[in-house]
Amino acid sequence: MTATKRTAQATRESLHRIFTIPEAPNSTIGRIEQQISQNLMGFLGNHIAASENALTDIEQDFSQASIPETPMFVSDHMQHLLDKLVSQSVHTSSPSFIGHMTSALPYFILPLSKLMVGLNQNLVKVETSKAFTPMERQVLGMMHNLVYQQNDKFYGQWLHSAAHSLGAFCSGGTVANITALWVARNNLLKENGEFKGIAREGLFKALNHYGYNGLAILVSKRGHYSLKKAADVLGIGQDNVIAIDTDEHQKIDCKKLIEKCQQLSAQNIKILSIVGVAGTTETGNVDPLNQLADIAEQFSCHFHVDAAWGGATLFSNKYRYLLKGIERADSVTIDAHKQMYVPMGAGLVVFKDPASVAAIEHHAEYILRKGSKDLGSHTLEGSRSGMAMLVYSSLHIISRPGYEMLINDGIEKAQYFAKLINQHPDFELMSEPELCLLTYRYVPEKIQRLLANTNGEQQAEINHLLDKLTQFIQKRQRENGKSFVSRTRIEVARYGGAKILVFRVVLANPLTHKAILSDVLEEQITLAQESETFLPKLLVIQ
Amino acid sequence: MTATKRTAQATRESLHRIFTIPEAPNSTIGRIEQQISQNLMGFLGNHIAASENALTDIEQDFSQASIPETPMFVSDHMQHLLDKLVSQSVHTSSPSFIGHMTSALPYFILPLSKLMVGLNQNLVKVETSKAFTPMERQVLGMMHNLVYQQNDKFYGQWLHSAAHSLGAFCSGGTVANITALWVARNNLLKENGEFKGIAREGLFKALNHYGYNGLAILVSKRGHYSLKKAADVLGIGQDNVIAIDTDEHQKIDCKKLIEKCQQLSAQNIKILSIVGVAGTTETGNVDPLNQLADIAEQFSCHFHVDAAWGGATLFSNKYRYLLKGIERADSVTIDAHKQMYVPMGAGLVVFKDPASVAAIEHHAEYILRKGSKDLGSHTLEGSRSGMAMLVYSSLHIISRPGYEMLINDGIEKAQYFAKLINQHPDFELMSEPELCLLTYRYVPEKIQRLLANTNGEQQAEINHLLDKLTQFIQKRQRENGKSFVSRTRIEVARYGGAKILVFRVVLANPLTHKAILSDVLEEQITLAQESETFLPKLLVIQ
Repeated sequence: MTATKRTAQATRESLHRIFTIPEAPNSTIGRIEQQISQNLMGFLGNHIAASENALTDIEQDFSQASIPETPMFVSDHMQHLLDKLVSQSVHTSSPSFIGHMTSALPYFILPLSKLMVGLNQNLVKVETSKAFTPMERQVLGMMHNLVYQQNDKFYGQWLHSAAHSLGAFCSGGTVANITALWVARNNLLKENGEFKGIAREGLFKALNHYGYNGLAILVSKRGHYSLKKAADVLGIGQDNVIAIDTDEHQKIDCKKLIEKCQQLSAQNIKILSIVGVAGTTETGNVDPLNQLADIAEQFSCHFHVDAAWGGATLFSNKYRYLLKGIERADSVTIDAHKQMYVPMGAGLVVFKDPASVAAIEHHAEYILRKGSKDLGSHTLEGSRSGMAMLVYSSLHIISRPGYEMLINDGIEKAQYFAKLINQHPDFELMSEPELCLLTYRYVPEKIQRLLANTNGEQQAEINHLLDKLTQFIQKRQRENGKSFVSRTRIEVARYGGAKILVFRVVLANPLTHKAILSDVLEEQITLAQESETFLPKLLVIQ
Repeated sequence: MTATKRTAQATRESLHRIFTIPEAPNSTIGRIEQQISQNLMGFLGNHIAASENALTDIEQDFSQASIPETPMFVSDHMQHLLDKLVSQSVHTSSPSFIGHMTSALPYFILPLSKLMVGLNQNLVKVETSKAFTPMERQVLGMMHNLVYQQNDKFYGQWLHSAAHSLGAFCSGGTVANITALWVARNNLLKENGEFKGIAREGLFKALNHYGYNGLAILVSKRGHYSLKKAADVLGIGQDNVIAIDTDEHQKIDCKKLIEKCQQLSAQNIKILSIVGVAGTTETGNVDPLNQLADIAEQFSCHFHVDAAWGGATLFSNKYRYLLKGIERADSVTIDAHKQMYVPMGAGLVVFKDPASVAAIEHHAEYILRKGSKDLGSHTLEGSRSGMAMLVYSSLHIISRPGYEMLINDGIEKAQYFAKLINQHPDFELMSEPELCLLTYRYVPEKIQRLLANTNGEQQAEINHLLDKLTQFIQKRQRENGKSFVSRTRIEVARYGGAKILVFRVVLANPLTHKAILSDVLEEQITLAQESETFLPKLLVIQ
């Protein structure tokens, strides 16, 4: 046998093995899996290194663009993953990782994910998903119910209707927002007389037919960047996402919104949608949704609510009122992979009117035939996994009261942290928590007094130095690897609307206890002292 | 303690448990997980019922839109999933499930998926993914290399460049196709003088600025339906996806394509993109990509290749020539969840020019800052999971020669099945396999002779009855649950281009052996005899 033939035979044998013989429990991969099953937090704590290597160093390990010519043993590869990938990934579920919207996951998620992957259903069509199709429809119904609270008759009528859909399950909030605005756009510029509708003829002919000079989407300054992306993708243009000023609580200024609507109407620019934010990404505030619903009615436009992050608050009977008016929205985005504790890849949008998705209906010969219940006929994505199962299971295992506790705990933890910050002389709370998100910064007491009694150039100078200090602390803290808060830049009313750099904290992880919050502040004070430029410069200002 | 308080406490305890205490190995969920680990095919074989319940019956089990008010025990819920969901899902990895593009998965995928879920990285930004960011970039580089085969210097220069991207990892081929055409659209209608570009100002102003009457996307009749969806989403309009006739081998007719291009240019309609198909969904054929590249050059338009399914053929040194010319495409879609044996949710698009993604770049204050290496600044999706890891691992563990064997085996199995069909007197091969996909139908020998000697109305009548028979057999076979072929409708040149219903078979599952193929035909013959209307009607025709 030649060397080539020997190699070929070895490859064939390894192929046969990987498709037919499971990994042995005592193999490297088997042992790793057991560790993950027995103690995920322990595994992550041990394997995700606390030390931070620079990204450019890590890139050295991942710079091979050639495709291997020799198969690698599974166990060797597993060791490679542990050494190079896992050890340098982010402990997103750590109780002290409070800078983004990730959290610890419930344990049952892991075996269920494995079941989902093993079943490998494709939800685009019934033929490759069968029971997963009605299951996903039920999940959409439950989430619709969470928002719109219709009666049993309503759900009995629409839940499984082929030509209708209560929503769309997506890979995430961005696709959900695009889907919502796509539906809104296509319903606005629908077929009319000779015109066959925007879906068929496109935006250019649609605007010409309807005689509009353009379309606009109105949202507060705090709207998520995905809305601009949606406007770009949908051909509306990012500049036509009009950012409306916010009040001192980071909520949209309704007076200014109405003025803008009137102005646009006068310019013959049609308002495609007003978008309310239920939980702004940067400050966690909720727009006055009822008022927005009124304004949307007044200007006969679609009303979308981006509740990607805050939507789960609806599970809480105690805090549900914060989102009052959401039930009047035409569409609502909610991410299950945020405050519903499902892993990455589970967004969804629900529609008030089950018929509205007809505007984006697609068919094909081999699937999605007319009258079929294939989910793919009403989604932006095609082939999709059975992620909805994880939402289905979480809704059953955690249940509404369980979610309520998680939501209430988060909000109350944020209130506690705000108190801690307010009580501390060297910190300044920059936005009050409405949900479980707040922003603040480190400002030595002396500087706080100075700031209160100055304005104009000196105020700007101080804030500029404070920005530098905040950035220094945030980066250093991330690099230390003990805890993580994120940073962002928000306009602050008390400084004349200046854009100020702030720490941003999200308290959704149920494992984040109060002592961690005190530690985070302590660490930040220590780090501030390490700044050799900005803090000294600040402290000499008179 | 009141009853309410007791319930609340129970809920709190169950919450604490699910976030901190892993499922015991001897719990229902623990046992199920072990079964999956030890013998996935056995588990699926045992738990996915062979009997088919009507979808409307299954819907009864999933019609509860209210959200549970009581938490469910994990083990009880697991049993519920087994009884109601798993038992009624589809055995997509069964060797005799040869109707769609799903296959058995390699065993290492299961523990790796669990690791991926447990790590729960969010690839939108480095802060929540760290090493996963360069890892995904390497995967994109490897896939770029598979298509474009550039040298080391090229990859050294671009692989990790912040302002560049060799591609975008997506949830699937539809998003990949939309992303490709989005990039093409934004590059075509880019900023120019006063005009700030379509991304900012939208399609309406863009067409007005450039003075085009419209845009068009040209693809063969066999193009995937996602292209129409892309045209709808991007504001171009489905009717502006122009379907070009195919030759007798289901490949685009280049002469007709050129004529159409000339015609559109004369009407001042700008050709946005010519799309070549590398592996049509319905017949598995590959367009003449080199010729398409020439035509795209001639008309100065983007050239996209939809190789969602067929792209993996590039791993085969033996059959790579079938896709010759793909390296001239501006963008190429490949689904890793098809012939790369990765679970659902792994599509990608690669771009020849690493700078072309600048046209869809997005930024935000809290992430995706300018100059950052956050992957989210060049993708349609926002938050995304670490699915790229599964592609990374598969490329290392299976390696190129391993993929070559899988690809070659599939193609040669399809050639074998075609021979079987051709040799059998009662089957008619409807499209020759070029890759591992073919179509055929059951036609009793006598009818085949009749068809060969007739035309016009009688031919149409026979084909109509045969369509009914094909549908009958396909449905009955699916319901029997032993094996599954899909069906579609294709124009057949030898019947004057009439649209004929055919069985469609995809032979990508390495566990599908030859005996299964003979059994599928045998079963179809038996089922045909059960037809009490169509077969008798056919057999009396003279």
